[in-house]
Amino acid sequence: VPRAPVAVVGASGYTGAELLRLLAGHPHVEIADLSAQRAAGATVGEVFGHLRGLPIGERVVDAFDAVRISNTAEIAFTALPHGHSARAVAALRARGVAVVDLSADFRLRDPAEYARWYGGPEATPHPAPELLAEAVYGVPERYRDAIAAASLVAGPGCYPTAAILAAAPLLAAGLIRADGLIVDAKSGASGAGRSPGLATHLPEAGEGVRAYKVAGAHRHTAEIEQELGAAAGASVRLVFTPHLLPMSRGILCCVYAAPGDALSALRTEARGRAVADALAAAYDGEPFVTALPAGACPDTAHVRRSNRAHVSATYDARADRVLAMSAIDNLVKGAAGQAIQCMNAMRGWDERAGLDAPPAFP
Amino acid sequence: VPRAPVAVVGASGYTGAELLRLLAGHPHVEIADLSAQRAAGATVGEVFGHLRGLPIGERVVDAFDAVRISNTAEIAFTALPHGHSARAVAALRARGVAVVDLSADFRLRDPAEYARWYGGPEATPHPAPELLAEAVYGVPERYRDAIAAASLVAGPGCYPTAAILAAAPLLAAGLIRADGLIVDAKSGASGAGRSPGLATHLPEAGEGVRAYKVAGAHRHTAEIEQELGAAAGASVRLVFTPHLLPMSRGILCCVYAAPGDALSALRTEARGRAVADALAAAYDGEPFVTALPAGACPDTAHVRRSNRAHVSATYDARADRVLAMSAIDNLVKGAAGQAIQCMNAMRGWDERAGLDAPPAFP
Amino acid sequence: VPRAPVAVVGASGYTGAELLRLLAGHPHVEIADLSAQRAAGATVGEVFGHLRGLPIGERVVDAFDAVRISNTAEIAFTALPHGHSARAVAALRARGVAVVDLSADFRLRDPAEYARWYGGPEATPHPAPELLAEAVYGVPERYRDAIAAASLVAGPGCYPTAAILAAAPLLAAGLIRADGLIVDAKSGASGAGRSPGLATHLPEAGEGVRAYKVAGAHRHTAEIEQELGAAAGASVRLVFTPHLLPMSRGILCCVYAAPGDALSALRTEARGRAVADALAAAYDGEPFVTALPAGACPDTAHVRRSNRAHVSATYDARADRVLAMSAIDNLVKGAAGQAIQCMNAMRGWDERAGLDAPPAFP
Amino acid sequence: VPRAPVAVVGASGYTGAELLRLLAGHPHVEIADLSAQRAAGATVGEVFGHLRGLPIGERVVDAFDAVRISNTAEIAFTALPHGHSARAVAALRARGVAVVDLSADFRLRDPAEYARWYGGPEATPHPAPELLAEAVYGVPERYRDAIAAASLVAGPGCYPTAAILAAAPLLAAGLIRADGLIVDAKSGASGAGRSPGLATHLPEAGEGVRAYKVAGAHRHTAEIEQELGAAAGASVRLVFTPHLLPMSRGILCCVYAAPGDALSALRTEARGRAVADALAAAYDGEPFVTALPAGACPDTAHVRRSNRAHVSATYDARADRVLAMSAIDNLVKGAAGQAIQCMNAMRGWDERAGLDAPPAFP
Repeated sequence: VPRAPVAVVGASGYTGAELLRLLAGHPHVEIADLSAQRAAGATVGEVFGHLRGLPIGERVVDAFDAVRISNTAEIAFTALPHGHSARAVAALRARGVAVVDLSADFRLRDPAEYARWYGGPEATPHPAPELLAEAVYGVPERYRDAIAAASLVAGPGCYPTAAILAAAPLLAAGLIRADGLIVDAKSGASGAGRSPGLATHLPEAGEGVRAYKVAGAHRHTAEIEQELGAAAGASVRLVFTPHLLPMSRGILCCVYAAPGDALSALRTEARGRAVADALAAAYDGEPFVTALPAGACPDTAHVRRSNRAHVSATYDARADRVLAMSAIDNLVKGAAGQAIQCMNAMRGWDERAGLDAPPAFP
Repeated sequence: VPRAPVAVVGASGYTGAELLRLLAGHPHVEIADLSAQRAAGATVGEVFGHLRGLPIGERVVDAFDAVRISNTAEIAFTALPHGHSARAVAALRARGVAVVDLSADFRLRDPAEYARWYGGPEATPHPAPELLAEAVYGVPERYRDAIAAASLVAGPGCYPTAAILAAAPLLAAGLIRADGLIVDAKSGASGAGRSPGLATHLPEAGEGVRAYKVAGAHRHTAEIEQELGAAAGASVRLVFTPHLLPMSRGILCCVYAAPGDALSALRTEARGRAVADALAAAYDGEPFVTALPAGACPDTAHVRRSNRAHVSATYDARADRVLAMSAIDNLVKGAAGQAIQCMNAMRGWDERAGLDAPPAFP
Repeated sequence: VPRAPVAVVGASGYTGAELLRLLAGHPHVEIADLSAQRAAGATVGEVFGHLRGLPIGERVVDAFDAVRISNTAEIAFTALPHGHSARAVAALRARGVAVVDLSADFRLRDPAEYARWYGGPEATPHPAPELLAEAVYGVPERYRDAIAAASLVAGPGCYPTAAILAAAPLLAAGLIRADGLIVDAKSGASGAGRSPGLATHLPEAGEGVRAYKVAGAHRHTAEIEQELGAAAGASVRLVFTPHLLPMSRGILCCVYAAPGDALSALRTEARGRAVADALAAAYDGEPFVTALPAGACPDTAHVRRSNRAHVSATYDARADRVLAMSAIDNLVKGAAGQAIQCMNAMRGWDERAGLDAPPAFP
Repeated sequence: VPRAPVAVVGASGYTGAELLRLLAGHPHVEIADLSAQRAAGATVGEVFGHLRGLPIGERVVDAFDAVRISNTAEIAFTALPHGHSARAVAALRARGVAVVDLSADFRLRDPAEYARWYGGPEATPHPAPELLAEAVYGVPERYRDAIAAASLVAGPGCYPTAAILAAAPLLAAGLIRADGLIVDAKSGASGAGRSPGLATHLPEAGEGVRAYKVAGAHRHTAEIEQELGAAAGASVRLVFTPHLLPMSRGILCCVYAAPGDALSALRTEARGRAVADALAAAYDGEPFVTALPAGACPDTAHVRRSNRAHVSATYDARADRVLAMSAIDNLVKGAAGQAIQCMNAMRGWDERAGLDAPPAFP
């Protein structure tokens, strides 16, 4: 069976590195094209020292060219800054290339929302609004069938992925309320990307913790609200607090919620089991998501460098609240790995193809 | 002016190390007695390599002896495991020694609550309940006058200190509601003490994050509820989620709350300023607590190894919720430093005595 | 083609975890038996949270039983404490099972050396000296042919692997002298194993660095001397200084050496290229070792969680000394990965089988 | 007694932050002037979040002005990039201000050496060579009397300070040889300064280790050679290998040396004690340097955020080599603290003034 030729657009960031790593080991594809604007002309090994000495490390990075890509690749992964990505996607889709986009450009269904969150001070409109209708939000655990039928998938944000995996099944089952949600998420520094800055300078960030872009200032707020709203069948306004932690990878997400009617209807003693069972049922048979047994808490160290997610749900009887938690690797299940999982679904391959390496611990 | 002789009981843990460090530099005291059960007979420098070569490092650790201490010291800091501490405190108080206790033994005013949280499976009663009435909870920013008049101060827990500093003024002012509070706190590993275990083994904990003892399982829940309840003038049941982070020191605490009547009465645009102003007013003139300007978030790296706290409050207009945050060093403002601050208040000294070293950054 | 059944003995430590992770993804083997003394009866997922939810995580850990293993497995990986491992190996070899031993028991060829370094105060002799003759030291880059023919391979120590990869080719070529070698190596904390202790307690070790067991006190000294001596064709006595770093994984090894005759014979300007070329030539075609271009220094972050090694050699013209460096992952190329690489060689499989996943960075 | 007015020039980097922290608590000085080019106009609290809320945090940063400083300050600490610092120093000295310079500009006694290491591709000459003769190298443990008499002190580099403290007494006593020295040093990331870059970007550097500027490429090589040469009374060419570690602060320095005649003359069994005793004698009575007992290894965590140094010396009988080690905080004993220690010596104050806070551990 010939391998499907794929293109990686925007290969010089951390998401690009993970796409290269995972696609290089994927049994059904070959990397046919590889581009990055700033790094064009360099070898992959020069851009990423960890790939030196490997076949992928000797490849030369090209500049982006939609025509060239459409001539060689069937599927493209686009990992460019928002705005730029939409234009690249439009050019590729116009030439018939299927796309999994890892930017924010196709995540929000409503172009007005996009303009508000990503359009800058002038609310610049979406660069390719005509594509929004065909874009499918790429969480296979939520939209598997639509992804399988899609030609354009919007790879979700890292924080939204974590929040959705923890909370969506509970919302969908009416076990937690859609109003009053609190999403408190802790991320490793790779989530900030590869451009150095004071906020991720090792002496400043290496031994402390802080929140940032709180109270609705972080763009992922819109995406989390859209998707948790969809799960709940209601409009959602929630509190989202991201934190920067002194580690390179991983997101731990805590979702706090009031009990929904379906939970309050149960005897108090039955509620803990109800929320845990709901997650277990939701992820039964899922290749990448494991609902932990009662009493266990997700640990980002247990999913690092894998496409796996650990989730848990606990009922706090004293306070009459539910705590749903998830741990993912922000660059894998939160970005490159989930994108490949979507490609697998689009192609009808086993979703685990290229993604079945267990986490490496410690 | 002669220095006041003080005793440190339980000098071989991290809180003991910080007491020794801070008391060694205190202008008004001398360390007259120094004891620790397991380390008795060793020098301080053998117990703590960082104190080798200093005068304090050459001191020999004694076994605890209330009579000896009462003959030499006016004030004792007791930092023993709960239960043990109460017995040592009782012996010292019976001989007229003033005590700042850093265990949990005198934090909860209600002995039934103590038995429930600390009494083990058989709810063993408090070892010295007769002392509970005279014990004052040692957050000077809340109980300054009572501390000044006290002979027994209960040094607060690290998480409760962080939660109280962030939320108490807002509760007291009716700006946030007492029901539905969420306290999501992130701690460095020194909070777990000096006894090694798998949970704090560097390979397991050094590059990941996880929550633990969630949903009312952590004993500090009771203490936080007691004190936030006191601030609110109401009984409080809240969600408390502690986390272990890959760093040695620091607590970042996020308190999420619904707006209180006093806040909802304001125009939406005025609410952000109202909560920020309330913290600024509450800590105006406080030597150790700084309310950050709007838009700034507390960072544990900014208070490390000092008795300082940074706090902030933000109104999230989209979600109609308040986020109050605080950053402290768990071993200083969360333990040894605050205990010394209390001693200073008890003695009528400037509260900054021995505690005025700025944080060291980075 | 049926998969070869393998056994993992000592599956509850970090080396065991990596064996399970890598063997679970190996195309030519199946894990037929899995044992660990203390963890017997538990599932793998209970022992290692990161394997929960995976098929391997549901396996139950057995107690060691040589008869059972010999009935089900063709090859065994033994990862027990020294002394214990030798006895398990003897029992397995007596029943015809091929073994890759990851303990120190078969690394030193001279039983007197073993007794001196591992025999304790009474120099207890080797438990199975009769097997020493058949044991092959398991660095495929040095002993590929012998490994291919072996039934018992001694998996090298992590520090020795790093030192050998950096220095052996230079010694063999006479480019550096065998006397006066300095080996200064820096390791992540997982090298200390999974048993918690104060030395690897996160608050003590998480933000500092120190050397330990210096000046010939570390047992790997003997192993490094044996193997660098073999490369040089001379008896070697060297300085070995291991360090513990605040990270979970990785070894960076610096070997300092005086120039050998073959180097001194060259013009000064040619010496830098000569040592770099020697490493490049030695590792040309090697699947796991990459000699870096001039000016680049190995970084443990570039080989983490992979079986790869980066090496470099530099001539310091001012001081007339050579600096050879290597970076490996102590648990992969320094333990489990190299053991599997040896198994591949023993079986005639491509050495990359099961080991071709690139490093994951960052 | 009035406080001596001091100026801090270059207050926006990490060395500046430490100068502000330590001078703010110094009993004999007041910060009369405070300047930094890029940060001019901002408050100190805006530049350094950890100083918010403190009196020093409210001070406004000025632009450098030698006339203004000479009118208000008696002593200036200059912490500017090399080249710039020399010009500022010249302007200040011309107006009679005593200076402790923390740049590299006055460390090398020979202007030709300065031009070679710091002059760039065109070997630009020293900007103020006429001041080199009056500059005293600021390690009080080596040059106490000269510092006391000086008006211009060159604050040493962080790596050189560590190397000198470990090795100079042994060289001076003839216990180690001056030829063939190896200096392998490991540093926290704050040594790289406050300007962000990929090398200190948390995701890249936070969980790995690497050497950099090896084989005579690091400028501190010249300074180490100058000072160890002075101690030995000989010209020295040595190997210096700096490393970047995943921590914010601290330097651990290993110096490897062949035994000197004075050591070889001793019986083998006496050599370990001889080198240990030499360090103990050299630092007997020193307020900041502690020679550890035999068997103990310096740990950077034990000196963090203090002006203290731990040193040790070990004789490796197997390899006939000496290992001398030191641990310092690169920003304190390696920069700001030592500069203040020099000021204390210049003024005839107790050298401990403002520097007597013990390290904070953990």
